[in-house]
Amino acid sequence: MADVHENGYLDEALFDPSVLNQLDMSQFKAEYKNVTTPLTPEHNLQIRPLHLEDYDKGYLDLLKQLTTVGDVTREEFVDRFQKMKACPDTYYIVVIEDLKSGQIIGSATLVKEQKFIHHLSSRGRVEDVIVSDLYRGKELGKLLVDILVCLSQQLNCYKVSLECKDDNLKFYCQFGFERTPGQNFMQQRFYD
Amino acid sequence: MADVHENGYLDEALFDPSVLNQLDMSQFKAEYKNVTTPLTPEHNLQIRPLHLEDYDKGYLDLLKQLTTVGDVTREEFVDRFQKMKACPDTYYIVVIEDLKSGQIIGSATLVKEQKFIHHLSSRGRVEDVIVSDLYRGKELGKLLVDILVCLSQQLNCYKVSLECKDDNLKFYCQFGFERTPGQNFMQQRFYD
Repeated sequence: MADVHENGYLDEALFDPSVLNQLDMSQFKAEYKNVTTPLTPEHNLQIRPLHLEDYDKGYLDLLKQLTTVGDVTREEFVDRFQKMKACPDTYYIVVIEDLKSGQIIGSATLVKEQKFIHHLSSRGRVEDVIVSDLYRGKELGKLLVDILVCLSQQLNCYKVSLECKDDNLKFYCQFGFERTPGQNFMQQRFYD
Repeated sequence: MADVHENGYLDEALFDPSVLNQLDMSQFKAEYKNVTTPLTPEHNLQIRPLHLEDYDKGYLDLLKQLTTVGDVTREEFVDRFQKMKACPDTYYIVVIEDLKSGQIIGSATLVKEQKFIHHLSSRGRVEDVIVSDLYRGKELGKLLVDILVCLSQQLNCYKVSLECKDDNLKFYCQFGFERTPGQNFMQQRFYD
């Protein structure tokens, strides 16, 4: 059994699940379908922070639909999870579990970066948004992005950003994301 | 006086200064001019991690040449510094101090984000690169970016990225940064 910390959240959760309960969902773009809430406990899709036990619930297999993951042992997974958790107020990985199958079928990450500029503000970054191809068409990707945008605002970020392919520009526009003219994204890869 | 931790670095430094000594400078694009090294101790520009005491050395005034900073008390600065330092292996703010004036005249930040993808890899982000307008033309910006690119590779990032204005595209190209066709940067601001 997981232990409950003094600050009220489970040892196994990457971040305090109560932050997800405080979101202002009235601004969400997605319609809820099959999502478990206090008002709809009969539904089978639960939204929550990443848990340690999600190693056994297909979390890494889900990420393989996004990009390369490689073979990761349980020990390696636990080590990385704990290293993320050791950075307070930084990693917010939100997952969707299908309670019927016990599998993780959606995930998106908000990374919060602390700044000295803008009066000690922070900025958010949306990363690694993925919904299992078996669960497309339910607006779950939309729901995950709704949550992360709302969460970044709640966490006092002065802005939130992401990188996306041309095909996804329209999708992200609906949440208020815009390309800034004259602002370029550049990168270099050391390995894949 | 600052205390020396068991792990060997000063209480007042944001990160272990020894990581800067391990960089492979043979790949640097910048020429060194006036930079203090063990071989050139007579020079007056020192490169090192951000220190707590840089609040008194004009660090925030330097950032004001980049964007809005606002009025930040010493207590607020210390609090933010400690919060960054509480996130292991995440915030690498490299500064240049003019040892003659005792002022911080350059700064650049590498933020390391841990991932589950790419076999538990990490990615680096170059942020908030600024050199005081009184010190332009000495290739100090180039030197700071050299350091951060080299550092991101040393920290096992699979890639490093940044956002820049059109005017700076050519500058960043020389370090190996490229725009990826079909890859877009999008953002939304909640406040300035």
